[in-house]
Amino acid sequence: MTQTRKESDTMGTLDVAADRYWGAQTERSIHNFPIGRDTFVWGRPIIRALGILKKGAAQANAELGELPQDIADLIVQAADEVIAGKLDDHFPLVVFQTGSGTQSNMNSNEVISNRAIEIAGGEMGTKQPVHPNDHVNRGQSSNDTFPTAMHIAVVLELNERLYGDVGKLRDTLHAKAQEFADIVKVGRTHLQDATPITLGQEIGGWVAQLDYALAEVRHAGEGLLDLAIGGTAVGTGLNAHPDFGDLAAKKYEAETGFAFRSAENKFAALSAHDALVQTSAALRTLAGALMKMANDVRWLASGPRNGIGEITIPENEPGSSIMPGKVNPTQSEALTMVATRVFGNDATVAFAGSQGNFQLNVFKPVMVHAVLESIRLISDACLAFNDHCAAGIQPNLDRIRQNLDINLMQVTALNKHIGYDKAAAIAKKAHKDGSSLKQAALDLGYVTASEFDEWVVPMEMTRN
Amino acid sequence: MTQTRKESDTMGTLDVAADRYWGAQTERSIHNFPIGRDTFVWGRPIIRALGILKKGAAQANAELGELPQDIADLIVQAADEVIAGKLDDHFPLVVFQTGSGTQSNMNSNEVISNRAIEIAGGEMGTKQPVHPNDHVNRGQSSNDTFPTAMHIAVVLELNERLYGDVGKLRDTLHAKAQEFADIVKVGRTHLQDATPITLGQEIGGWVAQLDYALAEVRHAGEGLLDLAIGGTAVGTGLNAHPDFGDLAAKKYEAETGFAFRSAENKFAALSAHDALVQTSAALRTLAGALMKMANDVRWLASGPRNGIGEITIPENEPGSSIMPGKVNPTQSEALTMVATRVFGNDATVAFAGSQGNFQLNVFKPVMVHAVLESIRLISDACLAFNDHCAAGIQPNLDRIRQNLDINLMQVTALNKHIGYDKAAAIAKKAHKDGSSLKQAALDLGYVTASEFDEWVVPMEMTRN
Amino acid sequence: MTQTRKESDTMGTLDVAADRYWGAQTERSIHNFPIGRDTFVWGRPIIRALGILKKGAAQANAELGELPQDIADLIVQAADEVIAGKLDDHFPLVVFQTGSGTQSNMNSNEVISNRAIEIAGGEMGTKQPVHPNDHVNRGQSSNDTFPTAMHIAVVLELNERLYGDVGKLRDTLHAKAQEFADIVKVGRTHLQDATPITLGQEIGGWVAQLDYALAEVRHAGEGLLDLAIGGTAVGTGLNAHPDFGDLAAKKYEAETGFAFRSAENKFAALSAHDALVQTSAALRTLAGALMKMANDVRWLASGPRNGIGEITIPENEPGSSIMPGKVNPTQSEALTMVATRVFGNDATVAFAGSQGNFQLNVFKPVMVHAVLESIRLISDACLAFNDHCAAGIQPNLDRIRQNLDINLMQVTALNKHIGYDKAAAIAKKAHKDGSSLKQAALDLGYVTASEFDEWVVPMEMTRN
Amino acid sequence: MTQTRKESDTMGTLDVAADRYWGAQTERSIHNFPIGRDTFVWGRPIIRALGILKKGAAQANAELGELPQDIADLIVQAADEVIAGKLDDHFPLVVFQTGSGTQSNMNSNEVISNRAIEIAGGEMGTKQPVHPNDHVNRGQSSNDTFPTAMHIAVVLELNERLYGDVGKLRDTLHAKAQEFADIVKVGRTHLQDATPITLGQEIGGWVAQLDYALAEVRHAGEGLLDLAIGGTAVGTGLNAHPDFGDLAAKKYEAETGFAFRSAENKFAALSAHDALVQTSAALRTLAGALMKMANDVRWLASGPRNGIGEITIPENEPGSSIMPGKVNPTQSEALTMVATRVFGNDATVAFAGSQGNFQLNVFKPVMVHAVLESIRLISDACLAFNDHCAAGIQPNLDRIRQNLDINLMQVTALNKHIGYDKAAAIAKKAHKDGSSLKQAALDLGYVTASEFDEWVVPMEMTRN
Repeated sequence: MTQTRKESDTMGTLDVAADRYWGAQTERSIHNFPIGRDTFVWGRPIIRALGILKKGAAQANAELGELPQDIADLIVQAADEVIAGKLDDHFPLVVFQTGSGTQSNMNSNEVISNRAIEIAGGEMGTKQPVHPNDHVNRGQSSNDTFPTAMHIAVVLELNERLYGDVGKLRDTLHAKAQEFADIVKVGRTHLQDATPITLGQEIGGWVAQLDYALAEVRHAGEGLLDLAIGGTAVGTGLNAHPDFGDLAAKKYEAETGFAFRSAENKFAALSAHDALVQTSAALRTLAGALMKMANDVRWLASGPRNGIGEITIPENEPGSSIMPGKVNPTQSEALTMVATRVFGNDATVAFAGSQGNFQLNVFKPVMVHAVLESIRLISDACLAFNDHCAAGIQPNLDRIRQNLDINLMQVTALNKHIGYDKAAAIAKKAHKDGSSLKQAALDLGYVTASEFDEWVVPMEMTRN
Repeated sequence: MTQTRKESDTMGTLDVAADRYWGAQTERSIHNFPIGRDTFVWGRPIIRALGILKKGAAQANAELGELPQDIADLIVQAADEVIAGKLDDHFPLVVFQTGSGTQSNMNSNEVISNRAIEIAGGEMGTKQPVHPNDHVNRGQSSNDTFPTAMHIAVVLELNERLYGDVGKLRDTLHAKAQEFADIVKVGRTHLQDATPITLGQEIGGWVAQLDYALAEVRHAGEGLLDLAIGGTAVGTGLNAHPDFGDLAAKKYEAETGFAFRSAENKFAALSAHDALVQTSAALRTLAGALMKMANDVRWLASGPRNGIGEITIPENEPGSSIMPGKVNPTQSEALTMVATRVFGNDATVAFAGSQGNFQLNVFKPVMVHAVLESIRLISDACLAFNDHCAAGIQPNLDRIRQNLDINLMQVTALNKHIGYDKAAAIAKKAHKDGSSLKQAALDLGYVTASEFDEWVVPMEMTRN
Repeated sequence: MTQTRKESDTMGTLDVAADRYWGAQTERSIHNFPIGRDTFVWGRPIIRALGILKKGAAQANAELGELPQDIADLIVQAADEVIAGKLDDHFPLVVFQTGSGTQSNMNSNEVISNRAIEIAGGEMGTKQPVHPNDHVNRGQSSNDTFPTAMHIAVVLELNERLYGDVGKLRDTLHAKAQEFADIVKVGRTHLQDATPITLGQEIGGWVAQLDYALAEVRHAGEGLLDLAIGGTAVGTGLNAHPDFGDLAAKKYEAETGFAFRSAENKFAALSAHDALVQTSAALRTLAGALMKMANDVRWLASGPRNGIGEITIPENEPGSSIMPGKVNPTQSEALTMVATRVFGNDATVAFAGSQGNFQLNVFKPVMVHAVLESIRLISDACLAFNDHCAAGIQPNLDRIRQNLDINLMQVTALNKHIGYDKAAAIAKKAHKDGSSLKQAALDLGYVTASEFDEWVVPMEMTRN
Repeated sequence: MTQTRKESDTMGTLDVAADRYWGAQTERSIHNFPIGRDTFVWGRPIIRALGILKKGAAQANAELGELPQDIADLIVQAADEVIAGKLDDHFPLVVFQTGSGTQSNMNSNEVISNRAIEIAGGEMGTKQPVHPNDHVNRGQSSNDTFPTAMHIAVVLELNERLYGDVGKLRDTLHAKAQEFADIVKVGRTHLQDATPITLGQEIGGWVAQLDYALAEVRHAGEGLLDLAIGGTAVGTGLNAHPDFGDLAAKKYEAETGFAFRSAENKFAALSAHDALVQTSAALRTLAGALMKMANDVRWLASGPRNGIGEITIPENEPGSSIMPGKVNPTQSEALTMVATRVFGNDATVAFAGSQGNFQLNVFKPVMVHAVLESIRLISDACLAFNDHCAAGIQPNLDRIRQNLDINLMQVTALNKHIGYDKAAAIAKKAHKDGSSLKQAALDLGYVTASEFDEWVVPMEMTRN
């Protein structure tokens, strides 16, 4: 039989497992919202952000004389454990709860309060000496704390996870672009043969897309530095010290190193989450860029014989039990699947973001969850793609040369030497005969072999 | 100087161009909603549906004794002109207006009333002898008439346009599948070479997708036969004869040939448009199927030399000014662009469809407009694709044979004759040498040439 | 130190934890795809479906003489454990892997093989006497098995979870509609006061939407009964007994009770998943209907004093620590958040569904995952909403009566008795004075009190 | 009978109406792409941008010695007419054509060539003295010109239309926020009564959202200043003077005043349109902000008696023929419908943007069309909303005061004077009795009337 203790809120008293720090409101939420429990319990990013939120709030309140220093110290100590991940098992709630994130805010208040009480040698559930509402939630409301935690969580995940993981892939591709700068190959537009480019140029186009998308994510992420904290229930800041928002933001900066600010307009900060919508959109753009790159990779690696086959990618698992050379582009497949998921997450975020009413948007949890999921998936998938695919991309030089040799678009290089008409005639003959341009040119007697070699230099056509 | 006449409504009197049949409310709407006027004026499908709506309503009301027969006759006569497209210039309103479509309903009431007055020899604007509200709108409200017109318009466009146009493409592809039933070619999975299929099987897969999607559109379209008519303002049917909805639906059936019914639950019929959402979704599925087909076509036709090149498609415009054989797959491009547009339209429809409140959804115009646009675009694009691409698809037999010959996956046919190990060894050698399977097999001495030809029969591997 | 054993595939040998049943390919996948591991490991529905898949395949193969009966029996025994959930810990793979679901197919082959070996007293990893490929995967390919498992999983989740859970909410609302059939209240269109309806009619509109959406989900679900099984790698069925697909489908029907069939066109079954797209779309329609209902509920319950307040909903958690009567509509919030998530999932599914190439769509895992998530979330949220909100909806009779009394739209009932002009004058006076209609009518002397009460009967206006 | 002349391209010769300036390729496109012709013919923004494009290209080519000055002058003269809108009737093509926009690029080449020929006294169709390809398209390819025109068109529409039109609404709301800064009213969270705010604060929240969204659109728009021009067919710039891209961009800046630049990476500029995707996303965020605002407006204006009714909005059309005071929020309805359309357009853009292959994205036309449509719709709808709704918003002071008086949340102001317990008791009694807080407070004897009035000052609670 599980040991329990009594926990209470304004609605009454109920039993909570004795070895759990949470209180009455968390317990009610477990009961009321058994929705997607297998996969929608909050993870580290939100729990950690709630810890940071409460720690900084206690520090700011103490400094402003709103909280006794010893109480604040106890809160800070407990909050540090939340930040460190020591109390994750005490955050059992799921995404689909009150749309303001109230229960998760209360979950953090209750856990920190009870853990602080325990540290102080008190009795859990008594709310003495550290009260979940009066002390841990001092000067706060779910309506301003949860969006604050949302921003902190996303900023940290972007900076500590996404920029590095995607950046690693970007750097690998950039190095490949440098490495393959002198490999001339056929270009393709409309899926049709076109004038030559270098493999370095081709990969460089992917890098440019990633650079742009990452810069846009960073730009959107700047908007997340504006925090709702200090707005309390409706944005007026009622019940909070007038300097609380600004000071708390400073504490968050001190804790994380990111320049958080108290948002200028708290009414918008509670009733809309447009910086999160913008962040989600930029992640979608990044996903679109990754999809284009991953598609190019798998098409360039298609074959082994009946595809394009101009690059090879690492063989990470058996492709065919009998046929060698069949290397399924599984990392491209995983990455493009992630891209479709990120597109879907973004649709959720934008829809939810449009549904605020009056002083509150009550789609907060679903929005931040989707953004965090997108960050995590893009990061993980880029890392896997980097390690198990991009890093091992190699040109298939024979195929590249062979494809280039039979390409007819190089004929344009002859225009200035023998005129458009003769050049076109060469291309036409080559196409009809199925021969190479050079063969057709020689057959027609319009150029000599050495002239052809001197004039038709694919590398020059790339303007590399 | 333009001649004007006075028109009035409950808000007062204003000037309307003398040569226009519309009245005060239409005139107000022109003034109040100058939104996207270049491209968002209602087209034939909605205008015609409004004509059908009003004609049937007048007939039903007359039959139920709610309208004098002579008044009804005048309305029917004017409505017939609306149906026939003679009065399209008198429907100047745009999609973005009142969300119930009120102004367009009034536009039809006013035009029919004034035209009927004119026919009767009366004076336009006097509402004598045919009143826009009391007679043309008898027993109706915008809230039930506009969704009724929405359903009529979409049902007609589906039946008179989409099923035929998409069906034509489907039939062309089906005939191609039959025609190419004996052309064996390489199959591809993960963009990698796989065991053989026939070109007929490949195309047959597209046909199966189109058949499924069309059946789903038809299924969803069945739901549109349920009409809001008879619900009046809030769904209770207040101010309409109790039999009006049923009888009007019968009239619409008589006029169009489609088995319209008065919806069982009018409250849902006014406050939600889920059958339209489902229709939009089925159109999206159809668009997805078309995208897959169009992508396959352009990839199969890619080249001329550095792509797959197993089929050829008609050359409808210059691909390259100098290089013959560069045939840009422009019909695929137009069709896939249409697909992305249909996806977007569907996102609009589903979003709008979720936003009803109480007894009304006020996103009616934007929903029906998007669905009608999707129908039109899919139909037009399928027809263009059919005429200018699908009908001219031809196998590139040389390339197909050549690709098949070098494919290594046929090695599996040797398993049962020489065992897995020797078969794998042949494939391995062929892959390493860049040789054909047959060459490798002979080199290794595992089979004779005649055995190889007898045992490795790609067509048998297709189980055609 | 963890005990390990050797496991091998065509790429070589590696170590696997001795207490895990999986083999080399699963182990490789764990290494290659560390993407979203926290929340994207496959859950019960897919694992169970893989068990059903392999069990029926073994049975069919045995019956067709393709597999010795004793081997088949061992497979069935192990597969039954997979079905029962006893081996869930041996399915460690995530959604984002090879786009054909190959690794999860192999995971099931490996686990069943090793478990069968164990049952037979053999040595795990030896593939004796039950080989993961030759026996468990007999006559199959990832390309036809994984989509088969997808369909089985979704069909079971729809039938065993969604229909019941959503149906429960539907039934509760239907009972409420019956119960409140005689409560007359103000109707609302454009958010403006309109003619009366009954609370039963209002709730009945929600029920009609749910009935329609559920029927559409069921219709789409019918399409999932068509299975890819029997198509093997490219759709031709190469390497499978010609009767294998049909017979396996019969076995799945015997196991589950649902009338699975071998799909008519296997090429489409591998390269597209349109029935899944349609199912997702129907779930989206259902989510849209739920959103409308949940929004109506929270608006009708808004207040306690400054909102509409015509119904009350259960108070499940503290709304305000000081203010009684503030009941936050948290179940509506959770349900509408779920709706936005389902919309996003559907965007993922439709996008992914359009991206097939040639003989394969390699977005299979992300598609089925999103659909299963939508089913789970809708089901859980409907159940929570039912238990903690819908079941406790009560009319606030005082407020309903009060709102109805001050509503001016009932004036239309006077038209036929005193004419439109006098009726309009009464409404105008009441509006100007801020008085009730009755008061204004009496003040103007157009009716007596008893006439008013006799003529203005809101219930009659509802045509209940 | 229509007069015709002969026009030719590399595919041959055909007839074109003698009074049209376009040539063979335009004529072919009309024939090949009869898709959505009613509403998808390009409008002013793209035609004008093509004129600017060709004018600047001719100037740059002349300056670089690539084009004789007299030829360039003729091109400039004709292009100026295109810019001025004099030749719009000669741009008959639709959006759904070649995915690179080739035909529209050729349309501009042909029209400018023929018009220049006409100016020079030559014979149209002879390509003398101004050749559509050799002169007008000099140093260009559809692949770099069309995306250049896309950016120019969107930048101009943003700057000349959207910023002004949305800004006008923003300024109106900002002025309203100032004007209503002292009107205290009830706040609402979860649709439930909350502590007071001012009407100015409420409207100020909308303004803050618009300011943020506009800034994000401007930021994204900056990315559109990077032009593809100079990249020619595959991004290498083959056939263009090395300085052409930079110089052409300078010409576009001179023509428009916007600081266009030649994009650093041309490969990305042809194969992706991520800056357009980002612009679309920012427009979606703006649409979401407008939706929230428009929803708040219609809810605050709901009633006249059974809603919230705290503001009044202009009555622009009859709401009810009999009931005064029923003002349907039609401008909110049009604006929120626009929002759903913008969301759909954005879904199209992001999907299309992800579908590039190798050196080209062939969804260019559908992308720019959707973005231009969104800009136009948002602009028009904001202007209509501003003129016909926002400018006329007035507080309903009686209702605001009445709602505030009965609100119980002001009880929190008593906490510090009489303690939490007594304050809560007052609220409880008021809730139970249906009385005002003051009445309950006096009844309980906890405060005097003058104390209550001194302590409970809603304006102070707003911290205005």
